[in-house]
Formats: sequence, structure tokens, C-alpha cells
Amino acid sequence: MSQRFSTQRLVEFSDTDMAGIMHFASFFHYMESVEHEFLRSLGLSVYSKIDGHEISFPRVAAKCDFASPARCEDLLDAHLVILRIGTTSWTYRIDFEREGQPVASGQVTAVCCRIFRDRPPESMPLPQEVLALLEPFLAAP
Amino acid sequence: MSQRFSTQRLVEFSDTDMAGIMHFASFFHYMESVEHEFLRSLGLSVYSKIDGHEISFPRVAAKCDFASPARCEDLLDAHLVILRIGTTSWTYRIDFEREGQPVASGQVTAVCCRIFRDRPPESMPLPQEVLALLEPFLAAP
Amino acid sequence: MSQRFSTQRLVEFSDTDMAGIMHFASFFHYMESVEHEFLRSLGLSVYSKIDGHEISFPRVAAKCDFASPARCEDLLDAHLVILRIGTTSWTYRIDFEREGQPVASGQVTAVCCRIFRDRPPESMPLPQEVLALLEPFLAAP
Amino acid sequence: MSQRFSTQRLVEFSDTDMAGIMHFASFFHYMESVEHEFLRSLGLSVYSKIDGHEISFPRVAAKCDFASPARCEDLLDAHLVILRIGTTSWTYRIDFEREGQPVASGQVTAVCCRIFRDRPPESMPLPQEVLALLEPFLAAP
Repeated sequence: MSQRFSTQRLVEFSDTDMAGIMHFASFFHYMESVEHEFLRSLGLSVYSKIDGHEISFPRVAAKCDFASPARCEDLLDAHLVILRIGTTSWTYRIDFEREGQPVASGQVTAVCCRIFRDRPPESMPLPQEVLALLEPFLAAP
Repeated sequence: MSQRFSTQRLVEFSDTDMAGIMHFASFFHYMESVEHEFLRSLGLSVYSKIDGHEISFPRVAAKCDFASPARCEDLLDAHLVILRIGTTSWTYRIDFEREGQPVASGQVTAVCCRIFRDRPPESMPLPQEVLALLEPFLAAP
Repeated sequence: MSQRFSTQRLVEFSDTDMAGIMHFASFFHYMESVEHEFLRSLGLSVYSKIDGHEISFPRVAAKCDFASPARCEDLLDAHLVILRIGTTSWTYRIDFEREGQPVASGQVTAVCCRIFRDRPPESMPLPQEVLALLEPFLAAP
Repeated sequence: MSQRFSTQRLVEFSDTDMAGIMHFASFFHYMESVEHEFLRSLGLSVYSKIDGHEISFPRVAAKCDFASPARCEDLLDAHLVILRIGTTSWTYRIDFEREGQPVASGQVTAVCCRIFRDRPPESMPLPQEVLALLEPFLAAP
């Protein structure tokens, strides 16, 4: 049975806008922050050097559906599951809830890449030890 | 034949991250900034009072696909077309390009809402005069 | 003897820039986030209604000196003390450290204000119950 | 007689907060954006390679005084002058105004540094050709 990773985020004042609610783009920051907390919980790091190469996870796609507004100091529950693991990429979903009610649900597809300063990132297969750590969180189809 | 709205954005240093490229979440900020420039070009305002009500356009969905990284001081062309106009909401797409090459393509669905301080936003039909201004930018199916 | 409020912040990937270090402007976000955590620890709220008025704390001055760069996933200790309490405003200092070494030291002066939608904020005296809560954190001169 | 560099910025919706005004930390982003536009106007670049080294301008100090709130879609005039040019650093001031009225006035001190991935930035003297370009903007004492 698949696991999910759960954590919480408090909505910061600076993430609100003049409509009095959390700005939609801030959800993408919160999603990444939760993803990175998840990676750290597995003993992984956000940005690492492997065999002398800088490795990072540029996104190829990100989306979010917004169900109800979040407000300053709302405590959001965030639940992460993995929807798909490919050769070089993985897709996760994060559901944000407040007191059990859906607030937003987002998805990000990230690609494992070598990073260079002077040319585009180059995708590479997800290392075997990373795959082994991610697989328990793969949601049943 | 449908029109599109075009403008440009220069990638700011503070929108880059340690991978040396523009952070994915910043594209959502740029999309909103372009949307608002589009609205102003029509004589509309981002946030207005109509009949004493505060009106804004909370997003119900946002997504972006990333084709190639953008870097600091890249000059991006942004082209906006409208994909759908509903009773209370509209969906637009913005394509970001650099020298004719695709960089990112995003979509946002925004709902016309009355904003209250003490309860959730309440959707309302897009005013007739707004509809008339948006329709020329509706992409042919 | 005066108290100080201490907490921690982990440097997020999205707060780094292409120089590989935490962007200077992000420290102001972290400072505000720590201030608000401090206010909550006193039972206060960031943004409240008093006698039907919206009350907030616009800043009249903010500054930060940067001693050494912070990097992604650095765990920063943050220590807040109050430097001055005036009639309508208060000034606090936050020192950020990593493993005992100074990273940055910032100050913010905030003014207690009634917030209106259609005209500038109006300063008002800090309520007596707020003063009583802040005073223990006033640093000895 | 000294020159000043002038440009404009329109306040974006996403830079407002729930108090209905531009968030104070956003002024630091606007300041950097204006600085970089100034550097480009001199033919300089934000982030460059010199003799194979990555060069950037980490900040050692930044501050801003806020005179009156800015609101969404306010058009701000920004005027930059240089207050001091040292061996490795320079300090500039930017005044933001709206229709001639002061909104905010900030200062940043930036140090010319070589950037490394695995150790702290290392300061270096401002190159002679950069000095020559900056000096006309040095305010009379």
C-alpha cells in the first residue's frame, strides 16, 4: 500500500494580496517547499553534486487547482503522493487542506538534470537509489 | 479572426535561482503581470469597485509547461490569447518565447468575484462590457 | 533583564538566486515571518479588527546588514529583541546566525495603523495590552 | 554636476498584501530591478564572467524608509544617484515618487565579488572601466 508524506504550512502575511487571500502563485512556492521537505525526509538533498556534476530538478510542468481561498495565518495540511515515476522524471501531487476541507491541489513534474552554467540543463536517468526511496510513495493507479 | 495581445518581459536577477535559471514559480507572476497589462490595454482595471462591491479575479486553475530555461536578462516575448469565456470565468493562454523559440506556455482560469473581508469570494457573471472587450481575443476553436 | 524571542528558518531553494546564495531581499521576508511568529507567541495576531477597524503594522523603515551568505537548506537561528517602543511604533532587531556565526542583522520599525481601502493608513497609539506584552523584550539600552 | 538615472515602475497586484498596499519587502526587489536597469544603461551586465571568474554584486547593506503607501497600478518614478564609490563597493540611493510626492527612499551597498560554488564570495576591486561609468552619477557631497 502506498504511503503519503504529510506536513503543514502556515500562510504568511506576505503571501496574501490586496484581495485579502493567499496569492495563487504562492501555492507553487509552498508546493516546492513541501517537495523539498519530503526529499530531505528521505535523506536526499535539493541540489547536489554527483560525480562532480551539479544535479537539480527543473520542472517541465506545474499546475494547481484552487478550491477555496487561504487566508493569513491559516494552517494548511499538505499531503504529497507520487503519481508517476519515469526514467528521468517524476510527478507528484500535493493536496492542501484546512481542517479537512480542500483548499488547493497541485501537480509538478520534475526532471533529473545536470546543470551547466553555459548551456541548457541535460536530463539524466533518476539514480537507482533515488528511485528506491520514491517508490513507496507511488499512489496506486 | 481572433487577435492576440503581445508584450515583453525581461527576466530579473531575483527571479533566478541557484540552478542559474528563472525559477518556475516566477512564470506565474509574469503571467499575471501580462494578464493585467492586457486588461489595462482594454481600459479595464485589475481590481475595481462596481456598485460599491470590491471585484477581483481569483484563479481557480493555473498551469504552465516549461520548454526551455530562461536566464537572467533574457528578453521574453509574451503572447496572450483567450481560450474560453464562460458565464463567470475566462481562461487565457500565454506563450513565452525567446527569439522565436518556445520557453513556456501557461494557462490561467480566473473567476469574476465579489470580495469580502469575512467570508469567501462570491462568483458573479462577467459584466457585459467586459465580455465585449474580451471576445476579440477569443482564439478560434 | 530583557528577554529575546528565538526561532529558526531553513533557507528555501526559491530564496536563492543565480549567485548560489540567498537573495538579499528574502531576508526581509524572513524577518517579517519571524516578527509574526513572535506576535503569535504573545497571543497577538498579525492583522486584526479592533472596534470594527482593520489594524495592521505598515513599516516606516527597514534595513539589514549582511555578514556572510546563506545557502539553500542552511538552518538559520533568528533572535529578536525590541530596540524601542514609541507611542505608535516599535522597532525590533533580528539577528540571523548559522552555527553561532553571524549571517545578517536587520531592523524594522512598524507603526500601528488603522487600514482603509480608499485613503492612507492612519497611525494610532499602540494599545495598552500590546505594550504590556512587548515590554519584556525591550533590550537594555 | 552629477547625473541621476530615472525610470518608472508600475506596482504589480502580486506585490500588494492584504493591507491593500505594496508590501515593504517588494521595494527591495524594485530597487534591485532599477539598479540593474541602470547598469544595463551603462552597457554593464548584472552578472558577468571576467577572466573566467563569475562576478556578482552581493549586498552588504540595504535599507529603505517608507513615506507613504503605494497601491496596485500606481506608477512610481524612480531616481537613482550614487552616494559613495569605494575600492570594492558602491552605495546608491533610489527615491520612489508618485506624482512628485515621496513614497520611499532606499539605499543599497553592493560589493564586487568573485562567486564560487563551494566557498564564500571573495571581494575584489571594482574594475577601472566600471568606475569610469559610475562616477558621473556620484552625488555631490
